[in-house]
Amino acid sequence: MIVIKMGGSLGINYEAVCNDLASILKTGLQIILVHGGSSETNLVSARLGKPPRMVTSVSGYESRYTDRETLEIFEMVYCGKINKGIVEKLQRRGINAVGLSGVDGRIWEGIRKSAITIVEDGKKKVLRDDFTGRVEKVNLDLIELLLEHGYTPVLTPPAISYQGEAINVDGDRAAAILASALKVEKLVILSNVPGLLKDVTNESSLVEDIPIREMDNYVKYAKGRMKKKILGAAEAIRQGVKEVIFADGRIDKPISGALIGKGTIIH
Amino acid sequence: MIVIKMGGSLGINYEAVCNDLASILKTGLQIILVHGGSSETNLVSARLGKPPRMVTSVSGYESRYTDRETLEIFEMVYCGKINKGIVEKLQRRGINAVGLSGVDGRIWEGIRKSAITIVEDGKKKVLRDDFTGRVEKVNLDLIELLLEHGYTPVLTPPAISYQGEAINVDGDRAAAILASALKVEKLVILSNVPGLLKDVTNESSLVEDIPIREMDNYVKYAKGRMKKKILGAAEAIRQGVKEVIFADGRIDKPISGALIGKGTIIH
Repeated sequence: MIVIKMGGSLGINYEAVCNDLASILKTGLQIILVHGGSSETNLVSARLGKPPRMVTSVSGYESRYTDRETLEIFEMVYCGKINKGIVEKLQRRGINAVGLSGVDGRIWEGIRKSAITIVEDGKKKVLRDDFTGRVEKVNLDLIELLLEHGYTPVLTPPAISYQGEAINVDGDRAAAILASALKVEKLVILSNVPGLLKDVTNESSLVEDIPIREMDNYVKYAKGRMKKKILGAAEAIRQGVKEVIFADGRIDKPISGALIGKGTIIH
Repeated sequence: MIVIKMGGSLGINYEAVCNDLASILKTGLQIILVHGGSSETNLVSARLGKPPRMVTSVSGYESRYTDRETLEIFEMVYCGKINKGIVEKLQRRGINAVGLSGVDGRIWEGIRKSAITIVEDGKKKVLRDDFTGRVEKVNLDLIELLLEHGYTPVLTPPAISYQGEAINVDGDRAAAILASALKVEKLVILSNVPGLLKDVTNESSLVEDIPIREMDNYVKYAKGRMKKKILGAAEAIRQGVKEVIFADGRIDKPISGALIGKGTIIH
């Protein structure tokens, strides 16, 4: 069993991912697909007259400021357009896919951070009424039930808080905690770069291999969203996943490539 | 076991429906909730600069012209905002709800009508590239699996065509065919009117009881969307559902009220 996380950045080739996924599933390997939707959410938000507001926390992580209206736009894009679009593509390829969010069956449960401290224009500010949070607990029952009966789960944020509120959570870290809970051997994270790059302007500067004990030497290369991806990967490895592979989601056969070592392997 | 269809018209009281649903579920009765989202889809479509286009078929039924872009807006609202919003409300009330579309697990399968003949300004026109269709087959496996394991399914269009395309289908008729397939005793259809009215401008002109053999005498009262609702109800009764109840979704305890006979009962 493997977990695949497909990012929501521009350039990801959904057709190629679904083709590859369908071929691999037909060999009998079980796959749970987790996906994002950030760039499409930015587009839809802007068209709806509610442009995205990205904020940077005091510890340096970037996230989307998510008031209730933004949360609903987020759900429209992630759970509506993208999730059902992927399920449709997989069904067309003969895969009995079922699309779910972390709210359904409380698959991803965690805490809501209703007040976050951010840094904006060099000043600290506290934002309230934010519906972001962090997954702490995975309720595997529903996922396992579906897998046992031959369905392929297609999973997306939001998660659900302990109080029953939908919360925007980071998809990479949610995929990492899911992979740990399922004790899978491999977690593949597809994005619009070939993996971790030493120089983000040079795609041939790929880091091919990171033993977890040397992680600290590589964290410095991770910029922007890659910081969270690396953090999620380290968490997954420490919780028992054998390999996390960062690979290119823009190319043909992206998953098969990742499984034979194309990309950055953290182990 | 009962099927509840909650319409997508303005005025439906989602909080009241979810409160009532949670109380009834706690008595042990199994419920499948089906919902719509038409009025919210109209709002979001307009805000996205793609105003809805309602068309009337040659046989007099009104439907939404659904090109691929409209289908994706439809999915955003129905499967994203509304479906996940209902699941969240039910989870908050201690109900382990799971939101699905007819595409997931191919629950609702049917034909796509890629060309429809409409009447506009008194003239016949053929529209192509339309993603509307009709549910012909219900795949119960997934729904039954969820019910057996204590989950409450929350189901919404679109359906999926035999060729694997997402299709916009009428929610009332989809709920009716689902109710027939599940052989439930009762199908409750909640909308923003008290039931079938003899005079749509007078809410006290409610028809309380329609034996199916007298259906033809009542069809004339159904205007606009009510025509499809009546058609769906008649189909459900002919296929084995004992009672279809049209009831008011704007009031407190709308489902409990319907189950004790408030509304229009077709039997």
